[in-house]
Amino acid sequence: MSDDYIIKPQPETGTSTSPMKAVDAHGNPVELDIVHERPLTVFLNNREIVTLMSIGDHPKLLGVGYLVNQNMLSPQDQIESIDYDDVIDTVVIRTKVVTDFEEKLKRKILTSGCGQGTIFADIMDKLEDTTLAQTFQFKASWLELLLNKIKATPSLYRKAGSIHGCVLCHKDKPLIYMEDVGRHNALDKIAGYLYLNDLPKEDYILYTTGRMTSEMVMKAVIMGIEILISRSGATQWAVELAEKTGLTLISRARPKRFIALCHQGRIMFDLEKPSSKAAE
Amino acid sequence: MSDDYIIKPQPETGTSTSPMKAVDAHGNPVELDIVHERPLTVFLNNREIVTLMSIGDHPKLLGVGYLVNQNMLSPQDQIESIDYDDVIDTVVIRTKVVTDFEEKLKRKILTSGCGQGTIFADIMDKLEDTTLAQTFQFKASWLELLLNKIKATPSLYRKAGSIHGCVLCHKDKPLIYMEDVGRHNALDKIAGYLYLNDLPKEDYILYTTGRMTSEMVMKAVIMGIEILISRSGATQWAVELAEKTGLTLISRARPKRFIALCHQGRIMFDLEKPSSKAAE
Repeated sequence: MSDDYIIKPQPETGTSTSPMKAVDAHGNPVELDIVHERPLTVFLNNREIVTLMSIGDHPKLLGVGYLVNQNMLSPQDQIESIDYDDVIDTVVIRTKVVTDFEEKLKRKILTSGCGQGTIFADIMDKLEDTTLAQTFQFKASWLELLLNKIKATPSLYRKAGSIHGCVLCHKDKPLIYMEDVGRHNALDKIAGYLYLNDLPKEDYILYTTGRMTSEMVMKAVIMGIEILISRSGATQWAVELAEKTGLTLISRARPKRFIALCHQGRIMFDLEKPSSKAAE
Repeated sequence: MSDDYIIKPQPETGTSTSPMKAVDAHGNPVELDIVHERPLTVFLNNREIVTLMSIGDHPKLLGVGYLVNQNMLSPQDQIESIDYDDVIDTVVIRTKVVTDFEEKLKRKILTSGCGQGTIFADIMDKLEDTTLAQTFQFKASWLELLLNKIKATPSLYRKAGSIHGCVLCHKDKPLIYMEDVGRHNALDKIAGYLYLNDLPKEDYILYTTGRMTSEMVMKAVIMGIEILISRSGATQWAVELAEKTGLTLISRARPKRFIALCHQGRIMFDLEKPSSKAAE
């Protein structure tokens, strides 16, 4: 099987898991692998933004991706440096000029405290202006190919469990496979990579093991992803936002089964029909 | 089957799900139920604290529970009023006197922005002083009883999927069963109920469908829960924090199988041993 991955999980290095001893339901000793979880504090220039819980790999991509997906870093902001300190678990991202976001946050803080509302409103404004192109055609038969490739990739999930994965695919090829304990960190690390590198701008599918909520849809749209596929389901608001912005949502993904929730126009239904006997 | 629930899911009212039309992998129309997701903005006195994404049930319990689990409301703070406005999706919690937290957050904001760091440090301080009693004995055979009762309870999960559940159990009886889209909301709603009501203070088990991360352990300990059980696994830091504070963590829970990760002293291993034939 060909491997087009740019980044994939490295479960064999062991830096994100540890072995531990426990007991089973009969009190007998068992051994298992368990994933790490450590804080990462993200700074934008001189401002402390957030502390994220992460498995600890790709901290620079996570820091940048978090800021991009919160609309705190835009393509016109030029990053001057990204410094990661693994002793105090911080990543400091410095831009050439002070970002637009910092001014907004400053004003907000003077009036009412945490900037959550501002950031949220900013993202909604950005989404209002976004409509994804509808030219990309996804063959329903690709799903089996994608899921088999992803499943065959050694991962922390297979080694230790208790972890979510997100895989950025270009057409029928998985390119970037990230995992993390935090609900959105895996996706943010992919966003960080996309921000810092010149990949082609079109025909992206994102597969996730997690549920598709409003926030996942917002992030996928900001990242320019056209098709979001989940092993799990979606919320009503996620579907509404995807409907508005032109994102195709596919839930309950199995090799030859799925439910397409909106913008089904991108899908070529090329799977063989179940035989009429089975349908009778 | 006797039913000791104080609160359980109300899937039949339909206020948290909607039917929707979609298509399957062959392009054929399908109908499914989908869970709602809407913002809830929480105010403490005059301060806007956070906007949470929720299915929208029990907004007052969610607001209070969020503040309790962030250590922004303590038992000595007297709540004067809780006002929920379903048009603008806000809940305002007013205390008799200004809370200690508000003063701390004010100072923090003057120096460096969002209060995340302060809140986190506060919770860690509180955990340092906490050691759970070790007298409660949990029979391994109770798990089958608990899981069967929970499984037999009509839920949004069974109706629409894509949702997490948390169940507060007193000994072998499920008492409060909450569901939500947000990772921690289900647990926070239980914390809100515990804060506002006089339930016995001991012998609590919490069962969750979600993974046991550091934050879940912190919240469980603050709530006085002695045994945290998950269908899924735990992170290393979750185990470390549970170890320190005296919480028993049980992962991979199935009717007659589980893995006890720490403080196994609370568990009575009363399950029949597998027959020696099977072990041979």
